[in-house]
Amino acid sequence: MLKLTFLGTGAACPTVDRNVAALALAREGETLLFDCGEGTQRQMMRYGVSFTFRDIFFTHFHSDHLLGVIGLLRTLGLLNIFGEQEARSEGLTLYGPRGAKRILSHALEVGIERVKFPVEIVELAVGDVVRRDEYDIVTFPTEHRADTIGYALVEHIRKGRFNPDLARAMGIPEGPLWGRIHKGETVTLPDGRVITPAELVGQPRPGRKVVITGDTRPVPAVQEVSTGADLLVHEATFSHLDQARARETGHSTATEAAEIARAAGVKRLALTHISPRYSREAPELLAEARGIFPETVIARDGMELEVSFEAEGE
Amino acid sequence: MLKLTFLGTGAACPTVDRNVAALALAREGETLLFDCGEGTQRQMMRYGVSFTFRDIFFTHFHSDHLLGVIGLLRTLGLLNIFGEQEARSEGLTLYGPRGAKRILSHALEVGIERVKFPVEIVELAVGDVVRRDEYDIVTFPTEHRADTIGYALVEHIRKGRFNPDLARAMGIPEGPLWGRIHKGETVTLPDGRVITPAELVGQPRPGRKVVITGDTRPVPAVQEVSTGADLLVHEATFSHLDQARARETGHSTATEAAEIARAAGVKRLALTHISPRYSREAPELLAEARGIFPETVIARDGMELEVSFEAEGE
Repeated sequence: MLKLTFLGTGAACPTVDRNVAALALAREGETLLFDCGEGTQRQMMRYGVSFTFRDIFFTHFHSDHLLGVIGLLRTLGLLNIFGEQEARSEGLTLYGPRGAKRILSHALEVGIERVKFPVEIVELAVGDVVRRDEYDIVTFPTEHRADTIGYALVEHIRKGRFNPDLARAMGIPEGPLWGRIHKGETVTLPDGRVITPAELVGQPRPGRKVVITGDTRPVPAVQEVSTGADLLVHEATFSHLDQARARETGHSTATEAAEIARAAGVKRLALTHISPRYSREAPELLAEARGIFPETVIARDGMELEVSFEAEGE
Repeated sequence: MLKLTFLGTGAACPTVDRNVAALALAREGETLLFDCGEGTQRQMMRYGVSFTFRDIFFTHFHSDHLLGVIGLLRTLGLLNIFGEQEARSEGLTLYGPRGAKRILSHALEVGIERVKFPVEIVELAVGDVVRRDEYDIVTFPTEHRADTIGYALVEHIRKGRFNPDLARAMGIPEGPLWGRIHKGETVTLPDGRVITPAELVGQPRPGRKVVITGDTRPVPAVQEVSTGADLLVHEATFSHLDQARARETGHSTATEAAEIARAAGVKRLALTHISPRYSREAPELLAEARGIFPETVIARDGMELEVSFEAEGE
């Protein structure tokens, strides 16, 4: 399972319809947060996002992407005071572009309480990769009026499928041998036969890829990292009618985001970071984007998008 | 008009039903905020509270009373970027107990934006009075596990009513003379008659009084300042069944708050700062308080309470 829950889809300041930026990505029981605007903890409660995450990835440190981390971490440390839940003791890691250590340390020292579990702050440079067992978080450059960074979750290529029926038919004893063959080893059976993996294991299967831009002008790096992505979450603060405003403020229009999606050949595009000047459903942004890239949705708070493996469903 | 809008009525951390602490008091076209937990700006939008306020009064600086000030002030400075509204240029004042300058300055420097209008931070000691033309904000001591202060809005005594019908019947020329008599001056008419104010002006009328405790144990000072108050907003984090927990954490029970209200002879009691352990309506807290002080309500987010002048409606 890989599912995105949009926690805040507005730009700059909240509105009644859209909170400020935050996005939860749940993958195989693990939750990652991307950005954490004011009120994110309450949005997580509203939309059923787990509080047992270990990572927050910040695209940049404008207020509308940042301020919620303070209260969220305080709440994680406080949950036991009313006896409902154990307070957190395990640590978590905050990732962000240049300035992360200074800005996040300062933020976590606001007020008179202190965070009661270890918090590591990791500054990432463009091109850095956070490696995990089954996926990488790949960073890429974006262009906004601040130090910024974009994130792509890129799952590792999975081994091809092992064919158990054929293995049995060939008389290969079930057990460790199957595993060795699946891992790519050529084995010699007790009866002397030599079995190569190609006989029993299918083609390696690509993992899934989700790209999250944060705030940015449309840039070639986003198109490049998004090539063949299952889902591109691109900001679209403005309609193309407000293109000049988008350029001036370091944002993208729905048209610009759709052009990136089309050029990169992504499967789906979700537009987010919608200016308060548009109505709740932002039909004008949707229309202009779909004219260029039909597989577009406008994110709204609480929206969930599942990402399946290619050609096999979930 | 004097109206309170409860923006956040929960304790320590938000829940889906209750946001963290904030309260708006609108009086004759002016808005004052008391405390400003995370998400207050969005609650103001939801519940139609004006963004043209000039003052925030903090009872103390625990996260759940503080964090929303950062985003709220950023938004006030940002509103013009999307062209909907003029950004604020006039200043505002933040009031709070000891530590206010250090804590609020630090908070306002979070992230990379800066507040773009003058912000004055005023530290108040218990007993300080903020004097305004028509009312005072009177401070009083409370008892919590931090530097805290409570606030009472006490309207000045208003002049008695001037009786225009009688003035006309007595042949007193309408105009400046009326005003002088109303202000308490004894005047001599052109025809030599001497008119004392008592002939035309009724008894001085008491102003309204609203008391806001912030987080506190039940203390005599609250009872004292609340004597005859129109409305006492007292915290009631816990039920009396959890009395030990209340004592341990520096909070009050619904029973304790109701006893203060009864002893002070207030007209109405609103309980707020309700622990997440109670359900949305907190019927158990309401029942125990009403058993002692019938004119009790449990505040909920978005609730408005109007305070009328005694015996004359609004």
